[in-house]
Formats: sequence, C-alpha cells, structure tokens
Amino acid sequence: MKLKIKQNILMEQLNYVIRGISSKNLIPILNCIKFELNNDGLYLMSTDNEISIKTFIDKKDIEEVEELGDVVVSGKYIYDIVRKLPNEIINIEEVVDSKLLIYTNNSSFNLNCNKVNEFPNLEIEKQKNPILLDKCVFKNIINQTSFATSTQESRPVLTGINFKIQGSILECTATDSYRLAKKTIKLDQEVNDINIIIPTKNLIELTRMIKDNDEKLEIHIFNNKIIFVFDNIIMLSRLINGTYPDTSKLIPTDFSLSIVSDFNHFYDSIDRASLLTNEADKNTIKLNSTGNKVIISSNIPEIGNVEETLDVEKDSEEDIKIAFSSKYMLDALKSFDSEKIKLLFNGEVKPIIVKNPDSDDLIQLILPIRTY
Amino acid sequence: MKLKIKQNILMEQLNYVIRGISSKNLIPILNCIKFELNNDGLYLMSTDNEISIKTFIDKKDIEEVEELGDVVVSGKYIYDIVRKLPNEIINIEEVVDSKLLIYTNNSSFNLNCNKVNEFPNLEIEKQKNPILLDKCVFKNIINQTSFATSTQESRPVLTGINFKIQGSILECTATDSYRLAKKTIKLDQEVNDINIIIPTKNLIELTRMIKDNDEKLEIHIFNNKIIFVFDNIIMLSRLINGTYPDTSKLIPTDFSLSIVSDFNHFYDSIDRASLLTNEADKNTIKLNSTGNKVIISSNIPEIGNVEETLDVEKDSEEDIKIAFSSKYMLDALKSFDSEKIKLLFNGEVKPIIVKNPDSDDLIQLILPIRTY
Repeated sequence: MKLKIKQNILMEQLNYVIRGISSKNLIPILNCIKFELNNDGLYLMSTDNEISIKTFIDKKDIEEVEELGDVVVSGKYIYDIVRKLPNEIINIEEVVDSKLLIYTNNSSFNLNCNKVNEFPNLEIEKQKNPILLDKCVFKNIINQTSFATSTQESRPVLTGINFKIQGSILECTATDSYRLAKKTIKLDQEVNDINIIIPTKNLIELTRMIKDNDEKLEIHIFNNKIIFVFDNIIMLSRLINGTYPDTSKLIPTDFSLSIVSDFNHFYDSIDRASLLTNEADKNTIKLNSTGNKVIISSNIPEIGNVEETLDVEKDSEEDIKIAFSSKYMLDALKSFDSEKIKLLFNGEVKPIIVKNPDSDDLIQLILPIRTY
Repeated sequence: MKLKIKQNILMEQLNYVIRGISSKNLIPILNCIKFELNNDGLYLMSTDNEISIKTFIDKKDIEEVEELGDVVVSGKYIYDIVRKLPNEIINIEEVVDSKLLIYTNNSSFNLNCNKVNEFPNLEIEKQKNPILLDKCVFKNIINQTSFATSTQESRPVLTGINFKIQGSILECTATDSYRLAKKTIKLDQEVNDINIIIPTKNLIELTRMIKDNDEKLEIHIFNNKIIFVFDNIIMLSRLINGTYPDTSKLIPTDFSLSIVSDFNHFYDSIDRASLLTNEADKNTIKLNSTGNKVIISSNIPEIGNVEETLDVEKDSEEDIKIAFSSKYMLDALKSFDSEKIKLLFNGEVKPIIVKNPDSDDLIQLILPIRTY
C-alpha cells in the first residue's frame, strides 16, 4: 500500500472509525484500524466485536494512489499522529518488516503493523429494501428513549432499545422496570414485522456520528446484527438475544385525573425541589394537588425542606397525593419540546404518564414511590 | 437577619465564596457560608482552613434590609438554591428554631442553620502599605510557574510557589526538583525583604476568581498568612512553613551552546514526538543537533518510532545529543508567547534552559535524562 492524501480528508474519516475502538479492549487486533486501498479508493475499518465501523474515501479525493494493498495498524497511534500532523499532503507507505511509514516534509513516523489476516472479517452485507429514516427523526428516537434503559447487566434485554415494527408503525421502547419511554413513528414504507433489541450504548455512539443533512439513514436488519448506512459510513451493531418484555399492557388508556401545566414552570419546580432529595432516598419528591394548585415538596431532615406552588388545569374534581423520583421526572421532561406538559394519573399507586397534551407520539411512564 | 435581594446580585458573590468550601471537608461548619448583615451591607464568608474568602454586597445593592444579624448555613445548598431560583427578588429571613427561610412567589425553602459562634474567626487584617500588582501580571506569574510545582506531599515546601522580594525585584519560583520555573518582575514600589511560600493550589484558585480589569490586586503579607484584596473580595491563604531551597545557583549564566528555533515548529515537533513516548519511560525524547539541523526523535519499541527535523540558528560549532521529558518541555514551552524560542545547553548532563530570546523575565529549567 502506498498513497498520498491530504491530512484533513484522512482525519475526517479517522474521526469516525476511531469510535469503533474500545479503549478497554485487551485483544490487540481489536485496537487496530484496517486500511484497504483498492481501485475504488481507501476503506478504513475498525471493530471491537460490539460495533464495527467502515468508512470510505473515494479515489478522486486521494492525491495519488501508487500501490494497492491492505495494512492493519494501531488505531490510537495512527489517529493521534494524523491529528497532530499539519494540514499538508501526507505520504503513507508500507515498507519492509511490515512497518507503515507516515511522512511529511519534516515529520517521519514508522509504525509496526499487525497481521492483516488476523483482523476480523466484518461481514457487512446489505438488504434490497432497507428501512429509510430521516436522520433527525432517528436521533430524536434515541435521545427521547435511551435514558430509560437499564444499566444493570443482570437483565441484558433491558440494556437495549426495543425496535418493533408492525405494518408501517415503528415503536421504540426503553425501560429499566421503574420507568419506561416509548416513541411511536409512522414509516413511509410497509415493512415485514420486526421485533429486535439494539444495545443502547451502540445507538448513542451512532447518534454522535450522524451529522444532520438531508440524506436518509438506511437501516438493514438481520438475524443477529443491524447495519446502519449513512454518508460514506457503515456501522454494524450486534443485537441483544432474548425476548423484550411485552410493555403494551403497562400503559393504561383511561385515567382518573389529568393535570396540564406550563412546561417551564413545572420543570423548574421539580428541578428546585430535587435539590432537597438524595439518591439514598431514591430522590423522592411529593406532588400534592388541591383544586387548581399543585404543591411539589421534598425534604432532607438534617438539611431542610422546600415547597413549590404551581397553577395547573385539571379535568376532574379528584385530587392526588403522589410521590416519585425527581431524577426520573426530570429525565422524562427533558425528552419533550412543548409549551405545556400533561400528567395522567390513576391514583397514587399506579404509573404516572407524562406527555405533550397535543401528541401521543412520545409517552413517558414513571412508577410512583410508596412513602407510607 | 431579614432582607430582600435580587437573585443575580447575590449569585455573583456566592460564585466567589463557594470556592472557599472544600467538597471533601468532614467538619460540617467548614462546609458553610456565613451571612453577616450589618449597617454597611451583606458580608459572605467561607473557609476550609486552607483558604478563606470574604465578599461584600453594598447596602445600596440590596433591595431592603429589614433586620440585621448573622446566619451560618450549608454552602452547597444555599448556592444551588439561589442558582436555580429565577432572576427575581429573593426574600431571606431567619425564623424560629434557627432556620433560614428563602422564598420567592412560588418557591419556599427552609434550611437548617449552624451555630454562628462555631464558625471560625477569619482574622482578616490589612497592612498600611500592601504590594500592588496588575491583575494580569499576577495571573501570568501563576500560569507561567505553577505547573512546575511538586504534587508530592513528602516535601511540602515544593508544593508552593516561592515569592521572594529584594528591593523592588519580585522573584517567583516553582520546582519539583526535576524542572524549575522562575519569573522575575520589577515592582513599582520598594518593599521590605520577603521570602515566603504560598500553596500553589490556593494561588490557582485565586487566578480563577480574578477578573481582568484595571484595578490593582493588593497583597498583604503576614507571618503565617497572605491576604489578597481585589474588587469586593478578600482571599486569605495560609503560608507553607519551612525554608525554600536556594535555587539561585542552579541557573547557570554561561552556556556552551545556544539554539534558536521558530516557536511553533519547535513546539509542534516536540508535541508529535511525544506521541511515541510513555510515562513509564519518563516521556523521554532525544534532541540531536548537527550543523543547523535539529532532529527530535523518540520510540516505543513495540509501537514504532518518529523523527522530526527542524532548521535552527546556533551560536557555536558545538553539536549536542541530549534527552529530556517531552512532557516537561511542552509544559515549559506553553508558558511562552513569543515567535522564537531559545534553548541553552552546557553539555548533555547539565540543565537545559528554555527562554524567549529577547527577554530574561521568564526562565524555564529542565534536567536532562541520562539514556545510557
């Protein structure tokens, strides 16, 4: 392999593939980036067995292709070296003793290469009819649900987001069994029924890589993996084995009380009341409605207490006294971008539903905390 | 104590006093802020026994003073509460059972107070003729020397910066015994001889509090403490007991070789060469001069090697091969803001001096590493 390439062009793609390398990986080959220079251009690949990333630089964006070939080299080092080189033309050349020579006018690096045949085969296939999604729609799905995922490895299925398609309806659900986030969107196409679980941390990594533009995100789903294609980039994630719990019966359709509040007032009140809660006590705060007033209160006995008063609209004469985690409520509220917020109740021991009063696309569910 | 005050005015001063509270302090009273409302206005005070901070809000900036008095309250909580309240007028009132009531239209906080007489007496005195320094000059002194301070508690005197005044010359020195930074400035006044050691971490905290404006920084020096006065703020730091090593003989006046290089080229070369060094090997890089070329090189055997080539000006026919820590060199270089950089040598086992070719105000000394 021998080529000349502009620093900024190579760097842009290294910024993507470096995300496929886990800093904690003990298997040296999984800390590497594979360079594959063929007649089309330069492919860069990385994998940590959880995700794989493949990017492409077209031949026309390469200054000079002198000799085709493959090399596998430490990801961290090649990334830092190219990052610190000036924005000039960089010469990259495989030399004797499986070394990679990277040089400009004043700088000359020699890196030891790993064996090309030890680099995992990425098996990146595509399907004829992928699912197409707007990039910003996809990012919203992840941002509005991922926080509700469990971080406990004891129930692996809950560490992912459930993507379920029936007809043209895509439902994305995350839950840690104390709260649940569900986003529903209508696809522009009909798809065969799908019910898969994608690791949340891979989806978050993916949202960081996707830049907003008008091109669609392609999603190719296989038995044990999912492939996302956008711009010049392919990302592969493994799927989580197992059956996602049926959450459809958890979200009630009838409620005994609904409260509508100004979004910012409600958010700020919960945020302030959360100051006098602590994790040991599950960040418990109380919500107490009387007529059209809501009082939000909390206390840490050795520190003090707080009361926040809000004017709200109600749809029934019923009042409620209920307690919940202020942290979970703030997480749920952050997923909305609306002027008002609606809270739905069925008494003090049943789940609380949080939603935009004008839309059912996004549902946040929070279990109450029994305080007596 | 009872007053009404605008949120932003109180917050501005809380941002200063909160810095006097160590998050790690196990003595509850040292996690508190003391409010002292008297006929002049409101004083806020904090101390962690390492530093003490006192700020002042003039009576004319307070909406209403209803009752004078003192309270001592948890710093973390009062800070977070005021920070999260809207920018409105806040009512603060001491109520029965030594509680502090903090309220606006919709929010009402009750905080337990600590005993006023348990709060340490800050003993903030001033001297008739303090040392006056431009704020930016003072910040430069700290930024250009503090990094060379030792972090090892085994030699406490080296964890501070030595301030030494003779006549009108102020010399500030920091060293961890492997490198040394010395900044010399001429004061606008004559002062009695002074030779003190100020804890570096307190000085760094101080530079974060000082905003650039035309007012001077007042420095009041006592036997076991130092007091800095600026804007409405007083900061007190303890001094480190002990005798600072005499470093005057460490810096040679004659050199067998001087090399002058473009600053950016030299910095970037060291920075890139540092990629192939590691901490276990003291980040060792080599500098090798031949004629008007300098080659900077380093290697990690299992990863690879690097060579950087630079054109330099020399004042003698002598060549040098010397090794040093790339980390120490980069730290030293960052303290300069010049187009060129001068390196002074006396052979490969004697200290390297780094300086601006046009000024002797700032001297950086680095011990070489023997590599054979």
